Amino acid sequence: MHNPPIRHCTACGSPVIYRVPEGDSRPRAVCPACGHIQYENPRNIVGVIPAWGQQVLLCKRAIEPRYGLWTLPAGFMEIGESTEVGALRETREEAGAEVALKGLYAVINVLPANQVYFFYRGQLTQPQWQAGEESLDVQLFHEADIPWEQIAFRSVAQTLQRYFADLRAGHFQIHTFDIA
Amino acid sequence: MHNPPIRHCTACGSPVIYRVPEGDSRPRAVCPACGHIQYENPRNIVGVIPAWGQQVLLCKRAIEPRYGLWTLPAGFMEIGESTEVGALRETREEAGAEVALKGLYAVINVLPANQVYFFYRGQLTQPQWQAGEESLDVQLFHEADIPWEQIAFRSVAQTLQRYFADLRAGHFQIHTFDIA
Ligand SMILES: [Zn+2]
Ligand SMILES: [Zn+2]
Repeated sequence: MHNPPIRHCTACGSPVIYRVPEGDSRPRAVCPACGHIQYENPRNIVGVIPAWGQQVLLCKRAIEPRYGLWTLPAGFMEIGESTEVGALRETREEAGAEVALKGLYAVINVLPANQVYFFYRGQLTQPQWQAGEESLDVQLFHEADIPWEQIAFRSVAQTLQRYFADLRAGHFQIHTFDIA
Repeated sequence: MHNPPIRHCTACGSPVIYRVPEGDSRPRAVCPACGHIQYENPRNIVGVIPAWGQQVLLCKRAIEPRYGLWTLPAGFMEIGESTEVGALRETREEAGAEVALKGLYAVINVLPANQVYFFYRGQLTQPQWQAGEESLDVQLFHEADIPWEQIAFRSVAQTLQRYFADLRAGHFQIHTFDIA
């Protein structure tokens, strides 16, 4: 789901050039034929930490990248949905699970990927889940059983570390951090 | 800075069609010639609530939309920067001001615009500012003097309302809400 460099104008199909438009400060894909400027911006990944008691529900990835590694249910935020609605959708799609959201937990800038992650805390409404098309397996883990060496993304590993630390401390706070 | 509907493939310039790709669940701009899929996602607006004592720094817009109305310094997050770096950049560009960030304050889903706003609290490092190219004026306001009827965006008005309520209460918390 990565967009490659823009070569043609989305409005008219002509080849674009990269230049700094008037009144702007950085190069954009500008169409010399029709004048359209195509902007590129970072994208949001929305997901949930689905909890059942002291345990957290993880998904084993059935897709690249990081096939076979474990992750929290999360994916690209779509046009027309809020971050919360997107997080619930991804939990349904990847883990076949329903959660009650308990608030925003982590906001992470993943700079190498030009992505911003949003993780919400969620309470499973019942101990029920099912691997979706993008998951090989879905499983509850106590902190002691988390496969730390097989977590798919640093954003997920660092979120889980903070989550279990907060769980042990007995209170949750919002975490904002960057991954460079 | 709004992207119109995608009509041509950014990779090869051929006309695209909207259809649901295999394994996907919603229509995308698909290129029948080269197979490229162009995804569209919500975009982030990053900004600051610049504080000087009990006062907040607002900018009078010199650009459309909402020319002549007041707003917090904020703008589109750019490729290659974090939400924090983008918020500092916008404060510099629009208000000519330097702030020390004091943490994430508001995360707002503005659904009609497909935008997510991030507002950080900021402390002006000195009582100094200057209207940038996109501002007609920049001014400090006490709560009692905020021109509520001339605030450019609902996201900004609702953030300022929460901010001053927290200021009166003596403690700040993160606010997450939707504007439908
Ligand atoms: Zn064009
Ligand atoms: Zn193409």
